[in-house]
Amino acid sequence: MQFNPILDSINVYEAGKPIELVVREFGIDNDDIIKLASNENPYGCSSKVSKALQKHADEAYRYPDDSMYELKKNLSDHLSIKSSQLIIGAGSDQVIEMAIRAKADSDRPILMNSITFAMYSIYAAQVGTPVVRTSSLEHNLDEFYELYADQKPSIIFLCTPNNPTGDAINTKELIEFIDKIDRNTLVVVDGAYMEYASAKDENYSVAAHQLIEKFEHVLYLGTFSKSYGLGGMRVGYGAAREEIIEALYKMRPPFNVTTLSLVAATAALKDGEFMHKSIEKNFEQMELFEKFAKDNGFEYIESYTNFITWLLPEHLDSSELSDALLRQGIIVRNLKSYSMNALRITIGTPKQNQKFLKQMQRLLD
Amino acid sequence: MQFNPILDSINVYEAGKPIELVVREFGIDNDDIIKLASNENPYGCSSKVSKALQKHADEAYRYPDDSMYELKKNLSDHLSIKSSQLIIGAGSDQVIEMAIRAKADSDRPILMNSITFAMYSIYAAQVGTPVVRTSSLEHNLDEFYELYADQKPSIIFLCTPNNPTGDAINTKELIEFIDKIDRNTLVVVDGAYMEYASAKDENYSVAAHQLIEKFEHVLYLGTFSKSYGLGGMRVGYGAAREEIIEALYKMRPPFNVTTLSLVAATAALKDGEFMHKSIEKNFEQMELFEKFAKDNGFEYIESYTNFITWLLPEHLDSSELSDALLRQGIIVRNLKSYSMNALRITIGTPKQNQKFLKQMQRLLD
Repeated sequence: MQFNPILDSINVYEAGKPIELVVREFGIDNDDIIKLASNENPYGCSSKVSKALQKHADEAYRYPDDSMYELKKNLSDHLSIKSSQLIIGAGSDQVIEMAIRAKADSDRPILMNSITFAMYSIYAAQVGTPVVRTSSLEHNLDEFYELYADQKPSIIFLCTPNNPTGDAINTKELIEFIDKIDRNTLVVVDGAYMEYASAKDENYSVAAHQLIEKFEHVLYLGTFSKSYGLGGMRVGYGAAREEIIEALYKMRPPFNVTTLSLVAATAALKDGEFMHKSIEKNFEQMELFEKFAKDNGFEYIESYTNFITWLLPEHLDSSELSDALLRQGIIVRNLKSYSMNALRITIGTPKQNQKFLKQMQRLLD
Repeated sequence: MQFNPILDSINVYEAGKPIELVVREFGIDNDDIIKLASNENPYGCSSKVSKALQKHADEAYRYPDDSMYELKKNLSDHLSIKSSQLIIGAGSDQVIEMAIRAKADSDRPILMNSITFAMYSIYAAQVGTPVVRTSSLEHNLDEFYELYADQKPSIIFLCTPNNPTGDAINTKELIEFIDKIDRNTLVVVDGAYMEYASAKDENYSVAAHQLIEKFEHVLYLGTFSKSYGLGGMRVGYGAAREEIIEALYKMRPPFNVTTLSLVAATAALKDGEFMHKSIEKNFEQMELFEKFAKDNGFEYIESYTNFITWLLPEHLDSSELSDALLRQGIIVRNLKSYSMNALRITIGTPKQNQKFLKQMQRLLD
């Protein structure tokens, strides 16, 4: 059978290895496995979320409220924007997909950082739109501007803090940059890890309302998958002026967020304390990873997220190291597929981190 | 801002009115509302499902197993096909979307019944592919063949039993039809309500394995939203030969099914008894709706599903009737948007049905 020729250029996205498969392969007990690969909140989700899920479990038969009234009301209050300036996706991934399908065209490329969230280029490939990347490891806005002026992209993706590197863009520089971009180019500011950056340093904090008030050509992305601890529930959002939101809505599949995901996200929003404590513990624990790198002579990228990226020296191979860790039941993200000799490690619980760092030290000694 | 010109021709899908909004509008108590509009399983979900959801609620933080190993293993056993012949979607809706994006092209239209599931044409519009429809109310395979021969569609959608009309295609005729279609045209057999049809009359029963064994150009769709009682969890599937499944996988967004949806669907599969009892009660109760129609001089379409479509006589207006019902807290689907003077009513629980029929009789008297 002949398919859409676009398919020939699409690689299937390879997700982090599910814990269950690792168990099967190495015969390691489930409880002994440490997964530091997907930047989940290692403290799980708020107990208010799990209680709400338990309470509403028997509503699994009922179609979701497709207007998402409750969640949008709570979230728009939280973000200090209007409900009409929000669209909810099955993860912010889905908002990325809707944005690309609504805005991209085949004549203009999509501009993004050299190394950044993989989904931008995956969804670009699905619509057959070309991708242009900067060459710098971290977001270099001068380079972005040069490429913008030269290539006239339809969409510019700025991921701050950036995944999988952890660096962030200075807020003032970000806003100056966006202001220089013409109003027919969509600037997507992906703040999936923004709650971490905001807690760490206000100079790297960006709020959705701040962007929306100023700019008609910005789409801010947020997610419940990271600091809110709902990686499994697939809830993210886009915030923008109504013109953009209405366009995205036309590419939204109905009932794109499950009944229980709406329950979970609404409950998560109401427990800011859980989130803030998770973030506090995250940065306390991150110091151990920074110290470990220094002690062992590694470089690392200063992180505004819940993970750290270790740039390994030449004599250490990230693939060999991640394989060796896997055999011990420890899963981290090898960045070889991004052409980096680096490991991206989610900052886990104190117990997980201790075990990981001990095992890592053993491999290096 | 300029967007993809395709957006100009897209209407946003209007979902059934969420119960919560009706409550707000008419000040009706939540417990007094009867929703017979979305063809959910009125008996809810299996208690095994709600127990599994409660048990796994605190896993909401963990990304789904994107290989969907457990669910695919259980489902492929259940369907007597290989795991590699399955793709899981966020509802079978998403498999429809993936199929259209993977197969449709702008030169060939998509062929479907005059009145059928709305999502086929919505996703067709999103990729800008034209739609051709038969003129008959029920699937007329001769007419389908004529249009096929004339229009050379890329995809033919057959919805059996059909939503929103409830009629089904005879299995033998279906298979003869598919055999006449060239192997570069994808035939999608949407069996969202198939469990009901199979229970009612084996002459209208189609099994995924039966189609896959015979045909290389068929995609069978099934869902957990209807008889399995998981409308809120968004889990459906496509079953086909590997060549088709691999193409759809390229258009699949990663992590498209939530962690708890995988848990729910796997648990639902293991409680066939709940499903079979729901179906048995469904057809017992449907007799009351058939009798009511006859007693009041309506036509109705013989239904192989968990809903019935009443074709109203000229002096009764479906919009007026559904509005009047709404004010009593009863929600049914008015089919005016399909250019039918008809109501589609989900067969509810005995108590719901009694209340609905009583209220309906009052409106007619």
